[in-house]
Formats: sequence, C-alpha cells, structure tokens
Amino acid sequence: MQTITLEEIYAPIEASIEKVPAALIEVLGTSNALASEVIQYFFSGKGKLLRPALTLLGAALKQPVYSAQIHPPLHGGKDSHVHAAVGGVSFSPLLGGKDSDVYAAVGGISFPPLVRLSASYEIFHAATLIHDDIIDSAYLRRNIPTINVKWGAPTAVLVGDYLHDKALEVIHTEGSREVFSLFLKTAAEVCDGEIHELSQNKNFGLTEEEYFEIIRKKTAVLLACALESGARYAGCSTEEAAALSRFGHAFGMAFQIVDDCLDFTGNEHEFGKTLGADLEAGVLTLPLIRLLACSGASVRAEIQAVFESGDAGRLRALLEKIRGAKTLDYAFEKARQFSAEARQALQPFPASPAKHSLEKLLDYVLERQR
Amino acid sequence: MQTITLEEIYAPIEASIEKVPAALIEVLGTSNALASEVIQYFFSGKGKLLRPALTLLGAALKQPVYSAQIHPPLHGGKDSHVHAAVGGVSFSPLLGGKDSDVYAAVGGISFPPLVRLSASYEIFHAATLIHDDIIDSAYLRRNIPTINVKWGAPTAVLVGDYLHDKALEVIHTEGSREVFSLFLKTAAEVCDGEIHELSQNKNFGLTEEEYFEIIRKKTAVLLACALESGARYAGCSTEEAAALSRFGHAFGMAFQIVDDCLDFTGNEHEFGKTLGADLEAGVLTLPLIRLLACSGASVRAEIQAVFESGDAGRLRALLEKIRGAKTLDYAFEKARQFSAEARQALQPFPASPAKHSLEKLLDYVLERQR
Repeated sequence: MQTITLEEIYAPIEASIEKVPAALIEVLGTSNALASEVIQYFFSGKGKLLRPALTLLGAALKQPVYSAQIHPPLHGGKDSHVHAAVGGVSFSPLLGGKDSDVYAAVGGISFPPLVRLSASYEIFHAATLIHDDIIDSAYLRRNIPTINVKWGAPTAVLVGDYLHDKALEVIHTEGSREVFSLFLKTAAEVCDGEIHELSQNKNFGLTEEEYFEIIRKKTAVLLACALESGARYAGCSTEEAAALSRFGHAFGMAFQIVDDCLDFTGNEHEFGKTLGADLEAGVLTLPLIRLLACSGASVRAEIQAVFESGDAGRLRALLEKIRGAKTLDYAFEKARQFSAEARQALQPFPASPAKHSLEKLLDYVLERQR
Repeated sequence: MQTITLEEIYAPIEASIEKVPAALIEVLGTSNALASEVIQYFFSGKGKLLRPALTLLGAALKQPVYSAQIHPPLHGGKDSHVHAAVGGVSFSPLLGGKDSDVYAAVGGISFPPLVRLSASYEIFHAATLIHDDIIDSAYLRRNIPTINVKWGAPTAVLVGDYLHDKALEVIHTEGSREVFSLFLKTAAEVCDGEIHELSQNKNFGLTEEEYFEIIRKKTAVLLACALESGARYAGCSTEEAAALSRFGHAFGMAFQIVDDCLDFTGNEHEFGKTLGADLEAGVLTLPLIRLLACSGASVRAEIQAVFESGDAGRLRALLEKIRGAKTLDYAFEKARQFSAEARQALQPFPASPAKHSLEKLLDYVLERQR
C-alpha cells in the first residue's frame, strides 16, 4: 500500500512536469506515419516520468523560480487544457488524473527549454526500453504489449534508434556543452551496462559486486545524469553537481534493486511489466544471486537445472521459492542502504520544497509497487 | 571487370586512410569481452572505408597538406607496421593487400583528430549496417555471417547502439559545433529513411520519387555529411561546403542505385552480401519499381503474388526475370545521371589530386561489383 504518491512528490514542479507529455510528443513529431503511430502508442502507456522529474527537481533545487511556472502560459494559465497532437492524432497525457488536457500542435507552440531538456531524458529512456524489450522478448510494458510484440523487431530497432537520436538532438540544443558531454558519457555507460548484463546471461557465478556494477551503469547513471543536468542548467556549482550525482547514483541503485525485487513479488497489472521476465530471460538479479551464494552445491545445481530447462512450470516454482526466501529481505535491505546514502548526499542543500521531494522520492522507491 | 581500383582513388590520402582501421578499433576499445569480440569480428570483414575516404578527401581538397602525413609517424614513417590490439586481441586492418600491419595499443598511441573523425563515420555506418541486418534478417555481410546470425538480435541491437554512441562521442570531440550539428541532423535523417523504407515494405505502388527520397535519406545524406565534414574541418567556405554536399548527395544516389542493382546482378562472393536480399525482404528498389510501372495489370498482379507467396523458387524466377529486363539498364542510366550531377558540383574546385579522386570515385561507383 503506497502512502506517498508521485503527484505529491512532483508538486513543486507541477506546472513543468505537466507539460512534459506534450513536449516529448512535440519533440518526436515526424511526418512518418509508421513512426508516429508507434510513438503515440508507446507513450499512451503511463510512465512515471521519473527522469524528467529529476531534471526539473534538480533545477528547482538550485533556483526555486523553476518550481513556479516561469514561462507564459500556453493558453491562459495553469488550468489551461493543453492537447498534444502529431499529424492530427490526439495524445492523452502520461500522467492521468487532473484535467491536464494538453494540446501542442507540432510546429505551433513550443515548450520552455528546460521542459524540452527534461523530456529528452524520458525519450532516451524510452529508446532503451524499446530496445530492451527486443532483447528480453518481453510482451508487456506499461501495461500494454511491447512494440516488439505488436510491430516486430525491425520496427522496434528503428523507432528505438529514432528516439535515441531525437533525445541527443534536444540535449545538444538545450543543454550546455557540459550537460551534453555528460549525457554522451552516460549514454555510452548505459549501453555498456546492457552489454555487460547480456554477456552475464545465465552466469550462475555472477557476484553481487558485478550485479551492482551492471545496474549502476544500466540504470543509476541516467537517473544521476538527469538530476545533475537540471541543476547544471540552473547554474549549480561543481560541488553541488557532484553531490547531486552521488544522490542520483545511490537513488538509482535503490530504484533498480527494488525494480528487480518487483519482478518476483509484484502485481503484474500494477507493475505494468511481465512478471518473472528476468528469470525467464536468464537475467540474474540480487535476490537470486544471494540465494545462490547462500545455498549448497546441490541447491545451486538444482536452480541451474531449472534455468537451463527453460520449463515454465519449474521456473514458476523457482519464482515461488525466491518469494518465500529471506534473500528478498536481504535485497531490500541493500536498497535501504543505498537510499540512506542518497539522503546523506542531500545534506549540503538547504531545506526547500524540491529537496523535500527528493527525500520523499527515496521513501517512494522503497515502497513502490510499480 | 573493374578498371579503377580504390587503392588508386585513395592514393592522395593513403597515409591517413591506412590508419583508419586501427583508429576505429582504438575508438571502440572496451573492457567488455563480448563487445570486443563482436567488434573485432565485424571489422574483420573488409569494408570499402568509403565514408572515411570521403572525409579525408574533403579535407585534402581544401588543404592539400592533409594529403600528406601531417602528424608524426607512429613508429617511424610510412612503412611502419602498425597493429591494432584491443584487450590483447590483434586486429587485421580492413584494407588488406599492402603490408599495412597496423598496431594501436588502446590507451597507448592515439591517432590524428582528422583520422579519428573520419573513422567515426565508418563506425556510425557500421552501426546502421548491424541494425539493418536484424531488420532484413540478412545472413551475409562483407562475406561473413552477420552479427544477427552469429550472436542473435539482442547482441546486434546493443553492439549497434554502442557503435552509434561511440561515433557521436568522437564527432563531438573532434568536430566543430557545426560539424556535430550536421551529423546529428544526418543521423536523424538516416533513421527516418530506414523507417520510411520499412513502412513501404511490399508496397507495390511505391513510386520512383518515393524510392529516391528513401535512398537519399538512408544513404546519400551520410556520404554527403562525411565529405562536407572533412572539408569543414579543413576550413572550407560555406559555398564550398554546399557544393560538396551537392556532390555527396548525387554521388550517394548513384551509389545506392547501383547497390540496389547489384542485389539482382552481383556475384554474391564479390558483392559480399546476400543476393536477392531486398527482394526476399520485400524491399522494392528501382529495377523492380520500374518493371512494375511498365507492366500491365496482369503482370503486376503476378509479381505481387510471387512476393506474397514468399516462395523461394518463385522469387528466384522473378530475380531472373528482372535480370533479363530492360529496367536494370534504366536504373543504371539514372545512376549515370546522378553521377553527372555530382561531377558538375565539383566544377568550382581547382584541379587537385583529391578532386581527381572524387571524379574517379564517380566512375568507380558505376562499374563497381561490390
């Protein structure tokens, strides 16, 4: 039962985050009918917009002015009903609720640079998800069938590439050279992390340290980059940037560990992703790595045999076994440690609504169900 | 029978182009064993290094000094035997023959900025080829099985992404803001062209104009970008950049039309790619588009039926039919027209070895077999 909501956490940046769904659709506007259709479809699945939120919170932390709506309203203030349309198709915003009914005619209105910048981290993230879903042969993402399942791998490869390039284009346009260089380094690390993960597929000797290194690269660095970039955009110092990068990394570790636990314990509908997908794809995550490390040779051999059989029934039984094991608690404890480390990194910053949101985000991640 | 060789054409930039194979391996150096292995494998296939050559010729056209070896030799002059090693593995250079036995210890020697820049266009091109081979399910590339066939789609997706990011990183580091912006725009167009092509798969109503638009985006823009970037790197004027861009576009159109013809007429071993791959994948190219346009309704229906049956024997018969048809001559004539247009674009430039090479490249492309 979630006690903290994203709406609550996003309150200080509400006016900006509400524009992100329309901004990313505007950024991705293309005359290509197939690409438009796929993009519209993908973003109709509700994401958490975590990366744009971090960018916006990073900026608001440094310059509270970014908490308010600093740009002229599009159609008359906060309650304006803004729609997103690309090629005549309407998009519903990602964050439902409210009546944020956002409309952006492509080539018509455009969004504040910071909103576009924040949206580009979501676009990049989407690109990696779309490619990931080819790799994992996942069938469900954000509660809807994956692009890979619906249109096939060729479309998923190319639309992922398109999103990747568009994200780069916007970050290059809106970010400083520093922000862009950070992003390029991050993108390379994310990819390296993914390749590292793939190369360790079904490696039953995978250590905790290697697992941490993989999730640091594939997840934590992008979250850290999004946050640091927002703060840099708002003119933070090198020390502040470093502190936020530390927060982002530790937060990202906690986030991914919990994500990996949810693959075992989650409710598929709430989680929005195929449950047990990692297990089925041969990806070893912390609860299983710990279980293997704590087990005798015969249990390890048994688990390995289940994996290698690829038998759905035996995999389900293993899933149940892990659900009942203490190693899930162990993994959550690790997530809590990273969360505490992240909280520590925020110490130098004076109290502010944005800081409070980042702290609440740490609690949210530990109790999240999706 | 090829009368013009690439060695001859590349003579004015010999000292630089010889470094490209080692430079691109250095750029792509990674501690990731899987990525290293795949990269080593891919580049063991001999490519034409056309894009780096265009960059180097563009620079040499503007500043003949780039024709010579302007940077200190790595291990003592032109005949130095330079090796490429990543993670202890040796790489053979792409351009065989000669005894260009190139050695670059990663983190050790590094290459002149222009060579690195030129190599990055080859790296980007490789990234698109690797993703293309997933899309087309091609089994042969540069005379060796594709990464998709050898390692599977997940590896091909990620290694393609990695190469894409690395190319960007180098162009960002070595190129001016202008050169980098041009590249970002180009990368987006290439991807757009690929999606456009995919969306027109098995569209029997595809017009010649649409086909030209697709190959302009997926092929010509990158060749133009590589050439223009080299000239910009060497300080050319805006007018000169525009002229070279025109050359590159027209040259690229001729290049791709001939490439598409070779899919029908080539010798698989010499061409290095799966013959009839376009036909099998449902990609319509000029010889077939023209055949359809010149045929009556019954022949069109017959061709369409062959396509839709996906029957290998019937596809082979169609391939033979196209080989015998006049529409191949028609396509070659179009290629010749684009080639003439490209030659025209070079007029403002005074005679030089680099200009002569670009002219010879136009002849080479029309008679090439690979």
